[in-house]
Amino acid sequence: MPIQAHGSIAYPPANLPPVDVEQMVRLADFEDPARERMHPVAWAYYARGAADEHTLRDNLAAWDRFRLRPRVLVDVSHLDLATTVLGRPVALPVAVAPAALHALAHPDAELATAGAAAAAGALNVVSTVASRSLEAVADAAPDGRRWFQLYVQPDWALTRDLVDRAVAAGYEALCITVDLPILGYRDDVLRQRFDPGEGAYANLARRAAWSHGSELDGTLDSRLVALTWDSLATIRSWTSLPIVLKGILTAEDAQLAIEHGADGVWVSNHGGRQLDRVAAGIDVLEDVVSAVDGRAEVYLDGGIRRGSEVLIALALGARAVFAARPFLWALACAGQTGVERAFAIVREELERALSLVGARTPADLRRDHAATFLRDPGR
Amino acid sequence: MPIQAHGSIAYPPANLPPVDVEQMVRLADFEDPARERMHPVAWAYYARGAADEHTLRDNLAAWDRFRLRPRVLVDVSHLDLATTVLGRPVALPVAVAPAALHALAHPDAELATAGAAAAAGALNVVSTVASRSLEAVADAAPDGRRWFQLYVQPDWALTRDLVDRAVAAGYEALCITVDLPILGYRDDVLRQRFDPGEGAYANLARRAAWSHGSELDGTLDSRLVALTWDSLATIRSWTSLPIVLKGILTAEDAQLAIEHGADGVWVSNHGGRQLDRVAAGIDVLEDVVSAVDGRAEVYLDGGIRRGSEVLIALALGARAVFAARPFLWALACAGQTGVERAFAIVREELERALSLVGARTPADLRRDHAATFLRDPGR
Amino acid sequence: MPIQAHGSIAYPPANLPPVDVEQMVRLADFEDPARERMHPVAWAYYARGAADEHTLRDNLAAWDRFRLRPRVLVDVSHLDLATTVLGRPVALPVAVAPAALHALAHPDAELATAGAAAAAGALNVVSTVASRSLEAVADAAPDGRRWFQLYVQPDWALTRDLVDRAVAAGYEALCITVDLPILGYRDDVLRQRFDPGEGAYANLARRAAWSHGSELDGTLDSRLVALTWDSLATIRSWTSLPIVLKGILTAEDAQLAIEHGADGVWVSNHGGRQLDRVAAGIDVLEDVVSAVDGRAEVYLDGGIRRGSEVLIALALGARAVFAARPFLWALACAGQTGVERAFAIVREELERALSLVGARTPADLRRDHAATFLRDPGR
Amino acid sequence: MPIQAHGSIAYPPANLPPVDVEQMVRLADFEDPARERMHPVAWAYYARGAADEHTLRDNLAAWDRFRLRPRVLVDVSHLDLATTVLGRPVALPVAVAPAALHALAHPDAELATAGAAAAAGALNVVSTVASRSLEAVADAAPDGRRWFQLYVQPDWALTRDLVDRAVAAGYEALCITVDLPILGYRDDVLRQRFDPGEGAYANLARRAAWSHGSELDGTLDSRLVALTWDSLATIRSWTSLPIVLKGILTAEDAQLAIEHGADGVWVSNHGGRQLDRVAAGIDVLEDVVSAVDGRAEVYLDGGIRRGSEVLIALALGARAVFAARPFLWALACAGQTGVERAFAIVREELERALSLVGARTPADLRRDHAATFLRDPGR
Repeated sequence: MPIQAHGSIAYPPANLPPVDVEQMVRLADFEDPARERMHPVAWAYYARGAADEHTLRDNLAAWDRFRLRPRVLVDVSHLDLATTVLGRPVALPVAVAPAALHALAHPDAELATAGAAAAAGALNVVSTVASRSLEAVADAAPDGRRWFQLYVQPDWALTRDLVDRAVAAGYEALCITVDLPILGYRDDVLRQRFDPGEGAYANLARRAAWSHGSELDGTLDSRLVALTWDSLATIRSWTSLPIVLKGILTAEDAQLAIEHGADGVWVSNHGGRQLDRVAAGIDVLEDVVSAVDGRAEVYLDGGIRRGSEVLIALALGARAVFAARPFLWALACAGQTGVERAFAIVREELERALSLVGARTPADLRRDHAATFLRDPGR
Repeated sequence: MPIQAHGSIAYPPANLPPVDVEQMVRLADFEDPARERMHPVAWAYYARGAADEHTLRDNLAAWDRFRLRPRVLVDVSHLDLATTVLGRPVALPVAVAPAALHALAHPDAELATAGAAAAAGALNVVSTVASRSLEAVADAAPDGRRWFQLYVQPDWALTRDLVDRAVAAGYEALCITVDLPILGYRDDVLRQRFDPGEGAYANLARRAAWSHGSELDGTLDSRLVALTWDSLATIRSWTSLPIVLKGILTAEDAQLAIEHGADGVWVSNHGGRQLDRVAAGIDVLEDVVSAVDGRAEVYLDGGIRRGSEVLIALALGARAVFAARPFLWALACAGQTGVERAFAIVREELERALSLVGARTPADLRRDHAATFLRDPGR
Repeated sequence: MPIQAHGSIAYPPANLPPVDVEQMVRLADFEDPARERMHPVAWAYYARGAADEHTLRDNLAAWDRFRLRPRVLVDVSHLDLATTVLGRPVALPVAVAPAALHALAHPDAELATAGAAAAAGALNVVSTVASRSLEAVADAAPDGRRWFQLYVQPDWALTRDLVDRAVAAGYEALCITVDLPILGYRDDVLRQRFDPGEGAYANLARRAAWSHGSELDGTLDSRLVALTWDSLATIRSWTSLPIVLKGILTAEDAQLAIEHGADGVWVSNHGGRQLDRVAAGIDVLEDVVSAVDGRAEVYLDGGIRRGSEVLIALALGARAVFAARPFLWALACAGQTGVERAFAIVREELERALSLVGARTPADLRRDHAATFLRDPGR
Repeated sequence: MPIQAHGSIAYPPANLPPVDVEQMVRLADFEDPARERMHPVAWAYYARGAADEHTLRDNLAAWDRFRLRPRVLVDVSHLDLATTVLGRPVALPVAVAPAALHALAHPDAELATAGAAAAAGALNVVSTVASRSLEAVADAAPDGRRWFQLYVQPDWALTRDLVDRAVAAGYEALCITVDLPILGYRDDVLRQRFDPGEGAYANLARRAAWSHGSELDGTLDSRLVALTWDSLATIRSWTSLPIVLKGILTAEDAQLAIEHGADGVWVSNHGGRQLDRVAAGIDVLEDVVSAVDGRAEVYLDGGIRRGSEVLIALALGARAVFAARPFLWALACAGQTGVERAFAIVREELERALSLVGARTPADLRRDHAATFLRDPGR
C-alpha cells in the first residue's frame, strides 16, 4: 500500500476495536474514529484545506448566516423525501460527492460507498481518480444511480476514453470539475509530499498528472490542461449524457454554463481545498440560482452536516446537495455499513427537519422557509 | 423511579448539602447546583437542545443584538410591575412556561411550581405531560392563575377529555403547542434513550406517543398527529376558553393564528429543542407583533435570564414573557422555596430595571425603550 | 476602617513592594497592582458592573466600531492639548469623573486625586459620596478646576446645603447625576453586602440612603428620590452655577436637557454599573451631539483607556472626556504620584495621537477624523 | 552590537541549528524560528504595534471582510506574474517594503535582502534608517530594481544630501514616508527603551532624531520635522525621480497627493506601529483608488501573508503590494537564502491563486474578482 510507505505504522492500527455504528447519531460522530483509523497523510489529504483554511472553516460557519423559518400546523403526516435529479428519481435530496481514492479510507473503497448509496436510493458520483475502476464501481451497485466525475486530462484521447467507458458502464451524467486548472496550495500536502503511488488511480494508466512533485520550483508542469468554455463543445460532441459543471461560484459563470448547454450547475469550492478566501457555497447559492433562472438544475456541496443545512440549501434553490467528507469518515469507520448508517442518520434528520419546517416534500420548500440573517436580522 | 433505572446512582446524591437559596442573586445561580442534584439523563433532557444547538445558544446570545434606551428624570417612585394577561391581572409580566415532568427535578414536582407561582402572583402554565395530574396541580394553588398547555393527542377523544378536565379544574386558557408535529432531533436524548417509564405522565393513561424508541429506523411511527389550522376549529368548538398558540416564529403564521381566532400568539422555538437553526424568538418578535397588529396578545419565551431581557421583550411588544429552565433549576435546588426565590430575584431585577429605564409600569414601555443594534448601531 | 471589617486581611498587604510608576506606560498597567492593593470588596465595588456586565464589557469593546482617519502632511509642530470646558481653560480634554469613596483606594483619598488633577491642569469632579469633605478637597488643590457631582438627596434641605457648600468652596459647576433613581442590580455587591460603614461619606451626616440592605425583599425603600425634569428648576433657583446632567443616553433626553437649561450633557452609562444592556456611550454620542446641536457642551465617559479613544470621542463631538477607574487604580497604586503618572501617560498618548491624526489642537478634530466602521467598512 | 548591550545573551543563540528553508511552505513559517534567533528587543521592535495593537491585528483580520470570486474555464496555461511599477518591469507584483535596521535580523542586513529581491526580479525599497549605506545596498544588487525610502530630516541639507546620494546610486524613485511626524506610542518599545546605539544608521551621520529618550516627559523634542504638503515642492525641485507618498489612509489625502504631483500613493498604516485604531489598508484601498482615479499608481502594504491576499488587493486596484515583516523573518532565519525562499513561496502561491481565480496576469484582475463581504454577503 503506497500510503504505508510514508511511515512504519500499519493502518488502521490493529488494536482499535470495530466502530459500533449504532452509537453514531450525527455525521460528525464519524470523524474522530475515522481519523484514528486512517494514515495521517491520508487523513490530512481529505480533511485539510487550502492555505490558511479560511474557506474550509467558512464552509461550516456560513450556515450561521441563515435561519430557518418554520411554518406550523401543516399536515406533515405523509412525508416523502423523494425528489428527482436530472429527471430521474432519488430517494432523498442528499448525494455522495466525488472524492479521490476511497481506498485511503477503507479497503472496500468505492465499492462500499456505491453499495451504501444504492441501498439508500441516493445518487453516487464516482471520481475519475477513484481507487477502483469505474466499471467495478458500477458493477458493485448496478441498480444504483451514478454519475461520473470527469477530470479532463491533458491527453484528450484519454479523456474521451474515460467518457466512453462511463457511458458504457451506465453512468447517467458527466460531472465535469471546472475549478481545478491546477491543484490548490495546501500546506499540509506540500509538507508531507503526498504521493499515492503508481497504480493508485484505477481509471488511469499512468500516475495522475496533478500529483505534487515540483512544488515551489517556479515551473508549472503540474498544470492540468487548458480546459475552457470552448472545449466543452468537444466533450458534448462525444455523448448525449447530461453535463453538470462542478465548481461554479459566480453568477457570471452560471450564466456562461447555461449558454454552453450545461444541464446542471454545481456550486462548490472543492471543499475549501482549491483557492482560499473564496465564499462558502451557501453564500453564493442565491446568486447562482438567480442567474440560472430555472434553465438548469443547481446543486451545492460544502459543509453540510445536518438536516437543517440541507433545508437551507433547498429553500435557497438547490435541487440537491452533495457531501464527501462525512461519507468518507463513515467509510473509514465501518465500510459499507458505516456509509449506510450515515445515510440513515441523514434520512432521519431530514424527515424531522422537514416536518418541523412544515414541508411534506423537498418540493414544498420555498425561499421564505429560510432567512438571510445578517442582512436583515430575524426576517 | 424510572429515571433511576438508567443507572445505579440515587438522585439527588445523599451527600449534597441543601441549597441556601439566600445566596442566589441571579437566575443562573440555580443552574450548577441543579445539575448536581439531577440525574444526568433528566438534566440533559431539560438542558440540551436540538442537533448542534445553534438555536439553543442563540436564545441566550440574541439579546446582544438589542440595547435598552434608558430615559432619565422620570418619576419612578410608584413602581408597579402588575399587568394583565388575557384581561386578568398578574403581579408581574413573567410567567412559568410549561415543561414536562417536573418530578425529574424535584419530588414535589408541579405542585411546588404552582405554589410558588401563585405566591408570586404569576401565571403558571401546566403541561399535558406533567408529572402530576392537572387537577392536583390546580388544587395545590387554587387561587393561582393557570393555563393548560395542550399537546393534541392522536386520539381526539383523549384530547377532548384533557380539555374538559382543564375547564373543570379552573384553567383559564388553552395553550396549544403547535411546533411539535414530531419530536426534534436531539443527539443527547437519542444517545441516552431517555424513557420516563410507564405512568410517568399523570394526565395520560398510556405512555406518551412521542417517546423515542424507533429513532433512525426510517419509520415515523413516533409522529404525533396531523394537527392543522383546520383542526383548531374542533378544539374551539369544545370550549369557550381563550386559545393561545405556542410556537409561532413567522409573521405569516401569526396572521393565520389571528384568522383562526387565536387569543394569544406565543413566540417560541421550544427552548431550542425542536428545530435547530431557527431564529431566537426575540429576533422575530417584532415581525410577529407587527403582523398581529393588536388583534391578540403576543408572548415570548426563550433565553430570558435577567430583568433587562424582560424589558427588551416588552418594549418590542410582548405582553408577557415566559421561562421554563430557570424555574426548573430553582425547583431542583429547593422545591417550592427555590422557585419562590427565583421569583423574588425576577421581581427585584425587574423593579430596578424598570426604574432605570424610566418606566413605572410594564405598560409604560414603548418601542423606543429598546434599539436594534446591528441594523443601526447606537440608535 | 470599615472595609477591614469584612475580613481579617489588612489592606494593602504589608508585604507588597511600592509600585514603581515609572514602569507604567499605559493606564491599564495600573489595574493589576491596584487590585492586589485593595480589599476585594472595595475592588469589586469599583470594578464590577450591573447584572451580566454586557454594558461593562461593551464600554471597552465599542471603540472597535470606529476607526480613526489620519490626515498626513499637516504641520503639527506646535501641538497644544489645551481646550476650554464651560468657557474656562483646561490643559487637556481628559478629566477625572466622580467616583465614590476614594479612601477605598488609598488613605489620601480625594485629596491626592485633586492634587494630581490640578498639577496636570485637568478638571476634577468630586463626588457627593466622597471620603473627604468637599471643602477639604477644594483646599487640597485651591487652584485646580473642580466641579461638584450632586446626588440629589431625599431630604431637599440636605441637598440645598450640599449645593451651598459647593458654591462656597469654589466649585465651578454642578454635575447632577440623573441615572440613579435606584441603585443598579450588581450581583457582586449583593453577594458581598458591601457596607462602607457609618461616617464613610464625609459630606453626609448620616449613612447614605442608597446603601444596600433590603435587597430582594420586594420593598424599594432603598429608592432615592423622585427627581424629575421639573425638580431641576428648584436646584437652578438656588445657584447660578452651570448645571451639567450626567447619565444621558438618548437624543430625546438630550433635547429635554437643553429645554430645561442644562449647560452640559454628559453621555454616560455609569461605568456599566446601573442598567445592563444599555449602549456604550460612544455608540450614542453622535445622536446626543446631533440633538444638542451646539446649544450645550457634550461630554462622555466610559471605557477610555487610550489616546486614540479620546480622539474618537472628540471627533464625534465630545468637548471633553472623563475617566474614573483608571485614575482610581493609579490612586490605589501610588496615591497622588500614581495619578500624576496616569495624567503624564494620557498627555503623552494624546500628543502622539493628535500629531498622527493630523491635528494641532482638540479643536482641530472634525467628524471626518473618525469613521463608523460596521455601518460602512473602511470609510 | 548595540542590541547586545541590552542583555547578556548573544544573538542568535549558538545552540540553534540552521533553519532548513526547504521545510518552509508559507511565509508565516518563518516567524517562530526568526523570533528564536533575534534579540527580544529587536524582535519586539519589528513585531509589535502601537498602543493596544488593534490595528496590528486588524491588518491580518481585515482580509476576512473580502472574498475572492473565482472564474472558471479560463485558459490559464500561459501564466505571467510580471507587471510594471512606475513604468518599469518587475517579475511579480509583490515587493519589499522598507524597514529599519535589517542588521537586527541578520548580519548580512540589507545586502542580503537586496540580493534576494533582485534574484526574484522584485522591487526593493531601502530605508533611510538602514543598517547599511544606500550605496552599499545598491552595489549588492546593481541590476535590482530599487527605491529609496526617505525620512525627511529636521536638517534639510541632510535631507537633500540623502536625495542626491539616492539619485547617484541609481535608485529609481523616492518613497517619502508621510505618516511619521512623530513616533507612534508603542508600549513595548517604551518599556524596553530600545536604542540601537550610535552608528547604527549607516546613512545618517548622527543618531536618528526619532529615537526614543524623552518619553512621557511632556516635551516633544523627539518630534521630527514640520513636513507639509507645501514642503513636497522643495523635494520635487531637487530631482526628477518619481515621488511616492507612503502612509495615506484617506481619499482626501489621496486627492491632495495627486494635486501635489505624486506619482504613487501608498496605502499603509505603517504596519500598525504608528496610530492605533486606524483602518487596515485593505479597508480603505477602494476609497483611495477611487479618489486617485487612475492619475497615479496605488500600492498597499499591511498584513499580506498569502497569495489570496495579494489577489484581493490587486482586484481592488493596487498596482503592487509590499511586505516587510515576512521578509525580515526570512532574513533572520537564513539571510539571503531565507528571503529567496520567501519569494519562491510567494511566486508559487501567486501562480496557483491567479490560475484558480481565472486570471493569466495581474492585469487580468478586475474589481469583480473580489467581493466585499459584510456589506453584501456572498456577492
